[in-house]
Amino acid sequence: MPIVNPRYKREFIYGPAKDRPGAVTRSDLVLTSQDWSSLIVGKTSPWIQMNSRVDVIRKNSEAAFKQELAFASHLSVPAVLMQLKSGDVTNMARCLNEHLTNSYFQQQYWVQVPLISPKNQVENLIDGQEETNMGDNPVDDTWFWWHSFRTLCDSNKRVNVALEITADLPSEKCLNRWLSEPVKCVVISTSLFLTNKKGYPVLSKAHQSFIKQLFKLDIQLILTGIDRHPDKGIHSYQQYLDHLWQSQPPRDPIAQFSKGYEDYLQIPLQPLMDNLESQTYEIFEKDPVKYSQYQKAIYYALLDRIPPEEKETKEVILMVVGAGRGPLVRAAIAAGQQADRKIRKLYAVEKNPNAVITLENMKDEMWGEMVDIISCDMRKWNAPEKADIIISELLGSFGDNELSPECLDGVQRFLKDDGISIPCEYTSYLAPLQSEKLHNEIRLGKDREKPPETQMLFFMDLLVILTPVLYKNVNLSIVPATHSPGMFSWFPILFPIKTPMFLDKGCKVSVDIWRCVSEKNVWYEWCVTKPHVIPIHNPKGRAYTIGL
Amino acid sequence: MPIVNPRYKREFIYGPAKDRPGAVTRSDLVLTSQDWSSLIVGKTSPWIQMNSRVDVIRKNSEAAFKQELAFASHLSVPAVLMQLKSGDVTNMARCLNEHLTNSYFQQQYWVQVPLISPKNQVENLIDGQEETNMGDNPVDDTWFWWHSFRTLCDSNKRVNVALEITADLPSEKCLNRWLSEPVKCVVISTSLFLTNKKGYPVLSKAHQSFIKQLFKLDIQLILTGIDRHPDKGIHSYQQYLDHLWQSQPPRDPIAQFSKGYEDYLQIPLQPLMDNLESQTYEIFEKDPVKYSQYQKAIYYALLDRIPPEEKETKEVILMVVGAGRGPLVRAAIAAGQQADRKIRKLYAVEKNPNAVITLENMKDEMWGEMVDIISCDMRKWNAPEKADIIISELLGSFGDNELSPECLDGVQRFLKDDGISIPCEYTSYLAPLQSEKLHNEIRLGKDREKPPETQMLFFMDLLVILTPVLYKNVNLSIVPATHSPGMFSWFPILFPIKTPMFLDKGCKVSVDIWRCVSEKNVWYEWCVTKPHVIPIHNPKGRAYTIGL
Repeated sequence: MPIVNPRYKREFIYGPAKDRPGAVTRSDLVLTSQDWSSLIVGKTSPWIQMNSRVDVIRKNSEAAFKQELAFASHLSVPAVLMQLKSGDVTNMARCLNEHLTNSYFQQQYWVQVPLISPKNQVENLIDGQEETNMGDNPVDDTWFWWHSFRTLCDSNKRVNVALEITADLPSEKCLNRWLSEPVKCVVISTSLFLTNKKGYPVLSKAHQSFIKQLFKLDIQLILTGIDRHPDKGIHSYQQYLDHLWQSQPPRDPIAQFSKGYEDYLQIPLQPLMDNLESQTYEIFEKDPVKYSQYQKAIYYALLDRIPPEEKETKEVILMVVGAGRGPLVRAAIAAGQQADRKIRKLYAVEKNPNAVITLENMKDEMWGEMVDIISCDMRKWNAPEKADIIISELLGSFGDNELSPECLDGVQRFLKDDGISIPCEYTSYLAPLQSEKLHNEIRLGKDREKPPETQMLFFMDLLVILTPVLYKNVNLSIVPATHSPGMFSWFPILFPIKTPMFLDKGCKVSVDIWRCVSEKNVWYEWCVTKPHVIPIHNPKGRAYTIGL
Repeated sequence: MPIVNPRYKREFIYGPAKDRPGAVTRSDLVLTSQDWSSLIVGKTSPWIQMNSRVDVIRKNSEAAFKQELAFASHLSVPAVLMQLKSGDVTNMARCLNEHLTNSYFQQQYWVQVPLISPKNQVENLIDGQEETNMGDNPVDDTWFWWHSFRTLCDSNKRVNVALEITADLPSEKCLNRWLSEPVKCVVISTSLFLTNKKGYPVLSKAHQSFIKQLFKLDIQLILTGIDRHPDKGIHSYQQYLDHLWQSQPPRDPIAQFSKGYEDYLQIPLQPLMDNLESQTYEIFEKDPVKYSQYQKAIYYALLDRIPPEEKETKEVILMVVGAGRGPLVRAAIAAGQQADRKIRKLYAVEKNPNAVITLENMKDEMWGEMVDIISCDMRKWNAPEKADIIISELLGSFGDNELSPECLDGVQRFLKDDGISIPCEYTSYLAPLQSEKLHNEIRLGKDREKPPETQMLFFMDLLVILTPVLYKNVNLSIVPATHSPGMFSWFPILFPIKTPMFLDKGCKVSVDIWRCVSEKNVWYEWCVTKPHVIPIHNPKGRAYTIGL
């Protein structure tokens, strides 16, 4: 609802309304404090023109805007809605920023931005274009309106987006860009609705599709405009939107697993330095893809290792290094049965004494003499014989953030000269990332789990993703284009950069990254050298190291 | 001198030299600690190739470089010299940065950079071009080598430039760019010298001119290369460079006055809030230009005010608001005599009671009844009559950082309707500034005078310069193109920005700036909106305000 009574336009500088007596709006006593602070979103006056070149209009607007912000704070409404009408947002941003600096109360500010600028909406009508392509001219690109506004406000977490759906939609690229923004509500006008055969209001396929994507951001909906289906009643719009919400497809396994962790940063696990907890193992073991791929890789390796004519006479030695609670042991035994090849001995090496308890029990209950449980750090183990196949899963999010090189170097000497290591190779991919949300999560450091230096030092921006090849053409991948379908236990890692970098279309980005090792730790140092040089990040591992 | 003995190239990875017995260099006992730490600059080995694509060469170079840095630290030599040979500087920067992070000792690192890349030097020979134009390709632009290197090292103050003069010189623009860098020494090869008629080594006019400019940075010189004038002896080169140093022209008044304050940031004076000290007045009164310009402006104003035919019958009332120790009073009286016009009364208004003592004494000794000394803040003064001319000098560095609007608003009502205000108008100009030195001075906040928030918050980058028009065509200006010759008492003001912005050639920069006023303070808020938006700086005057 309007913060001040829309019938009274005020004049602060001069004019007949300057000295008008009486309150500018209804008394706060019309609602209880409890209601004001939980039910009402205050809306600033639509006539406000903070960027007017006419002094008196601008000054009047400024005074009104400040008065309304102050009254909204007084009422403790949970959010204040304000509209951006052009790309010239600096004065409104300045006034809101001043207000933010004053107030410690956690009020939210919803900045209403249309998907397409009014100017482009008109042009579309004239040109009859089917798709509007934004981004070429920041002045008309409403994402830049928002980007400017929040940047001017130093990316304050209390400043969020109220996204106004327009009749025409911009390109998919432009739509997707909004999905990484802090959209808190979506404004839908009754004028967007079509009428279906039965006379009920419905949205076009394109509108439906985009709104469903926005649902994932936990948005609220604002329905505006007059009732254009009076015979069905205004509640028919609401019913339709409810229906859209209800008819979302069920989440796929990855989405189910990662529910609540979207756009969320976690500190990488350090299984070498810390002992994982039972529930962590449990979660990873549930991955429906990873271990079946491992089993497949071991299957092919066994077939290569023992030709059919020798399958009765030849046996293999396997080592599972980092056996955890046994998923790779199970996969190896299953692969042996599937390939009809004999495993003489399988050494399951695990350094976490708590996980060893699980392994010992499984040996007693299922595996028997074939499996030897070795309670030992693989780097210190002295194997009694050499292996045909060594199997490990030490890759973590990044190529080696679980220190697979150090660990595998330790056991490499126990692999036969012609032996097979699974995985046999892996490749890390690096991609630039745009996500103001993650950026701010690091910058503002609200997450208590993060080491304090990280909170202060780093903003964000490089994403590393991994493709290990297990064996021959058996892969696991979290590269978006080749992501192993259904695999949910691996996430990419983020290398933050202190100051976000604006990249022009088509420009080249160069990143230098070093793996550094001391007696106790491994860490990465990185920097961007193109298009512009930035300081080396994480020197001497000051923000983050991996313990050896 | 070389940090390690140049006869022994070391091999750390493999090779015959890996296990060579004996020390890699002379014992530290050849000199006393006192001598090591004051007389010697250590030089890293010239064979080091930190950016080699060949693993063994790069790793060997890294090991050697680190060993040399460590030994140089052990010796406590005041500086270590290292050479950049290409634009691929990241690995050397990383290793030095690691060393910097380790050591708390204030050793300096001199990064030797040639004015022209070896590649361009060769091309110049082939093309026979007279002037090399850099900057188009950062790979070949040696300033970018240095810029990358120091940026990677997070602009550490201990990392400085050893500028190597090349036979060919780049364009003046490229040369000037070095003058804002922390050049600590200049490397001059004997091969640059020509031979004069008497057979002595001399430098070309172009080389002389640039080296003289570098002298202003308090550089040291390194003379390298073989003696090419053996009949005159190697000392003849040194004598010539001594001669160059001695033959620098005397400094002009501005340079004399500002000696020691080049590229130096000062907190602006706040004469309204603080009472200036006697010596501050004394310095400003010494300006040879400002008061003669004021006198000229008052002279013309008096001529306009009283036509020749009325000069015996008509008299004027003058007010000097902010009279200080009286320079404007003297200028006004002198202008009256010069114009042969009668001043009935000159009110000298001054709020600093200490300066009023000087004024009262001058009235007694010189000015007599014509001058009334008003010990009062001009904003609170109740003048007994209106003035024909009000004269003030409240402009400070920026348009109004001495709050001339508030002050002059206070006395404006005592100016006759057709009266004259001197200055009658002023204009502020804003220019982007590139100076890593100032940037770092703010960023690293070593200056204890600065408020702590400024130290943390702001980097740098906008320069404001002023042109007041005193009266008609009598100007004062600190805009470089129209600078009033010889005026030394006004400096531009710097509006820092938190993160420096890389500007492409020809791009547009837009800045929004607001003057904000509270009951107690005035402050500016500013932001850049083009080419990229940055947060609003100094919101609510959190880093700096001017006291009312």
